[in-house]
Amino acid sequence: MYQIIPVILAGGQGTRLWPKSRAARPKQFIDLVGDTSLFQQSLERVANTERYGAPIVITNTEYRFIVAEQALEANVPLGAILLEPVARNTAAAIAAAAQVAVNADENAILHVLASDHLIPTTAEYFAAVDAAAAAARGGNLVTFGIAPDRPETGYGYIAIGDALAHGAHKVAAFVEKPNLDKAQSMLAQGGFAWNSGMFMLPAKLFLAECERLAPEVFAAATAAVADARRDLDFIRLDETAFAASPNISVDYAIFERTDKAAVLPVSFAWSDLGAWDAVWKGQTRDEAGNAVSGPTLLSNTTNTLVVSDGAHVVVDGLDDIAVIATEDAVFVGRLSAAQNVGKIAKTLRADAATRALTETHKTSYRPWGGYSSILMGERFQVKKLFVKPGKKLSLQKHHHRSEHWVVVRGTAEVTLDGAVTMLAENQSIYLPLGCTHRLANPGKIELELIEVQTGSYLGEDDIIRIEDEFGRQ
Amino acid sequence: MYQIIPVILAGGQGTRLWPKSRAARPKQFIDLVGDTSLFQQSLERVANTERYGAPIVITNTEYRFIVAEQALEANVPLGAILLEPVARNTAAAIAAAAQVAVNADENAILHVLASDHLIPTTAEYFAAVDAAAAAARGGNLVTFGIAPDRPETGYGYIAIGDALAHGAHKVAAFVEKPNLDKAQSMLAQGGFAWNSGMFMLPAKLFLAECERLAPEVFAAATAAVADARRDLDFIRLDETAFAASPNISVDYAIFERTDKAAVLPVSFAWSDLGAWDAVWKGQTRDEAGNAVSGPTLLSNTTNTLVVSDGAHVVVDGLDDIAVIATEDAVFVGRLSAAQNVGKIAKTLRADAATRALTETHKTSYRPWGGYSSILMGERFQVKKLFVKPGKKLSLQKHHHRSEHWVVVRGTAEVTLDGAVTMLAENQSIYLPLGCTHRLANPGKIELELIEVQTGSYLGEDDIIRIEDEFGRQ
Repeated sequence: MYQIIPVILAGGQGTRLWPKSRAARPKQFIDLVGDTSLFQQSLERVANTERYGAPIVITNTEYRFIVAEQALEANVPLGAILLEPVARNTAAAIAAAAQVAVNADENAILHVLASDHLIPTTAEYFAAVDAAAAAARGGNLVTFGIAPDRPETGYGYIAIGDALAHGAHKVAAFVEKPNLDKAQSMLAQGGFAWNSGMFMLPAKLFLAECERLAPEVFAAATAAVADARRDLDFIRLDETAFAASPNISVDYAIFERTDKAAVLPVSFAWSDLGAWDAVWKGQTRDEAGNAVSGPTLLSNTTNTLVVSDGAHVVVDGLDDIAVIATEDAVFVGRLSAAQNVGKIAKTLRADAATRALTETHKTSYRPWGGYSSILMGERFQVKKLFVKPGKKLSLQKHHHRSEHWVVVRGTAEVTLDGAVTMLAENQSIYLPLGCTHRLANPGKIELELIEVQTGSYLGEDDIIRIEDEFGRQ
Repeated sequence: MYQIIPVILAGGQGTRLWPKSRAARPKQFIDLVGDTSLFQQSLERVANTERYGAPIVITNTEYRFIVAEQALEANVPLGAILLEPVARNTAAAIAAAAQVAVNADENAILHVLASDHLIPTTAEYFAAVDAAAAAARGGNLVTFGIAPDRPETGYGYIAIGDALAHGAHKVAAFVEKPNLDKAQSMLAQGGFAWNSGMFMLPAKLFLAECERLAPEVFAAATAAVADARRDLDFIRLDETAFAASPNISVDYAIFERTDKAAVLPVSFAWSDLGAWDAVWKGQTRDEAGNAVSGPTLLSNTTNTLVVSDGAHVVVDGLDDIAVIATEDAVFVGRLSAAQNVGKIAKTLRADAATRALTETHKTSYRPWGGYSSILMGERFQVKKLFVKPGKKLSLQKHHHRSEHWVVVRGTAEVTLDGAVTMLAENQSIYLPLGCTHRLANPGKIELELIEVQTGSYLGEDDIIRIEDEFGRQ
């Protein structure tokens, strides 16, 4: 029996959906379309245990707790969370995942998918997955080729060759991202598909082709898995070994060179949500062509996307506009020119004064819960902390600040210089500068508390961790 | 000697500059252009004690503390703050102010001005004021007529008649707000001026004309002043008497009927800042025609106004746009269609769900300082309170909430069930439900504290005031 192992690539740091997508919590982990994240929606597509084994997720160190928490929340048990110590593009990442998969089952078939694409789970989609798996079992490295519905210049194309079994075809040629003329002529001519970045691969065959066509990638991935280190639920690939891999995509390294490449032309709905206009297209729109999320009032406005995290957004008399309002940033621009957002985010990131706007949200997530920064003063700041039931923060102290905690929901267990106190809603405690302290939620509901910090320096790096159940320093 | 008494009309509740202007703190009291409010800028224009006596400000009960505080901050001592118990338009308001002025000096000349207009204080402006005063002393009710520079349809016009002394002219006719054709023809023809709403009036002559032409207004204003009640620094006009006045503007009630009306054609810079496009025009703009305040990044954007209270606003590839971002609302629309904002604000006000967006800002001002609402939870809320040096809140209690106070700046004197405690920065106190308590700032610098309220009901009306130095219930 051939088991299909989902391999989910979840290390990307998209900038084109700024200001919602930020380095600390990019596109795939935020609730962009619907009530769950795109990563969780990707997990849900592979959650059928009759079709799939437990997924392997490849991500980086920074996102490891988000991945673990969101998988837990989606109730999809993971087979492994592979941590890339450095980014080396898709060839090395997939090769490492393939090694992990064949170590468990040498006949494994890998279903490689992005964590940030939007694919409605229709019968047509699953029929395509099954066809791709059958074609892969027949000895093909299968890529899903999306039927183009517009002369898109942002994707690579595949020229569809001779028919193979199960609806797959030989790849006649890979076509680089075309200009508009070329894209229009391919659309008119037919016989081309978009290269989706989604694959169905016999793991052993993939590794053999990788060893033959990209031996440095193969050697690096193999050694990085062999020397990997288990850390809680994570598999940390060996840094020295993995860093030796060339930085190359699986398309360049393998697909464009192998004679085993096959394409399965598919026509299910698919979007890479590459920019705000794609998010708009991916949503239900009203008669005037508007898609909104959050509190909004539109008057005489058409073909517009509004995404608000809280502020009431009013748009009057405009067409083809994106308004994206987060707590600390607002983007306003033409929806049809939404690809400019990537450049703008890079401009903001390059400037020290605006860099934080591209890095973090006002709310930061931690393995124990997280915190929202709600007010920053000159010598004080106010945060709301939320701690999941049963979770515990590190035992820590600060050199430059005192803290006041007021419990506003749930129950807190506070350890202060060795003494343990329980606080209920509406109780408070004072943590003087230099004391060792630890916060835990011993209850069954989420704990929320307001923290008022005062002191001369209030940075996140003034935390001396004495003990931490998440292995953080 | 004839004294000029400024009469500043400061009771308006403009909606056309939403979301910055809100009922609780409208246009004239916010820092819209420059670092002081338009009301303060109006005060500064009449602060020359060689030219002027102490100003009379007419406002309503709700704005009385803002008026007093902003005048104190601007360091312009006021002659009187008249409180209108109900709104009765400008005729009754000016008549009441005229009564107050003649009670002190029967030869007073009134310089009546709006509190929300933008007028740079040039030599030309002051020359016009002096000319208007001279014309008024000659027995004229003088209105300032602004030289039109565009076919504006939003203002009334004055047809300029025969010349009088001091540059003034008889009023040949008042022209209602015209349509565009008519406005264009008046502009081409010449001899017309905009009716600015700014007047120079001999108080006794004005009252005599009021008694003759609008006797009900005169009787109501006279009785309201006679029966007025002093309350701290305020003169509360008698409600029953004042309410008896017809609701009528000074233009309809007096100017269009009297043969004493004169117009002084002037050409100093003047704007009523009636909508966001006027604010844009009133500001320094860059080469691309953009005016911004707050953190902003504009790319390929022209003729655009951005006003942000804090969020970083990015605008890409647009022309002729207004983006107004406050903490809880964002307006985006064509700058050239900015007059729509008034209608939109009315729509928001008519809906219970959005009404608050038109009424209050996140920061509310009180005679003792104020507070910002920084976080609202289900059974808790967090506020930042700021208390001016030497000020004291009411002695109060709450039926539905407990409060935690953490001092983050300055010194607090807290009275809790009769016992007085002093708290320094980084100290805190707990105020249980039902206790009587009072907060004061005995220090020399502003006191800031974080208040965490918990309880089942957290509305501002759960304050039982036992004692209050500002006479509030």
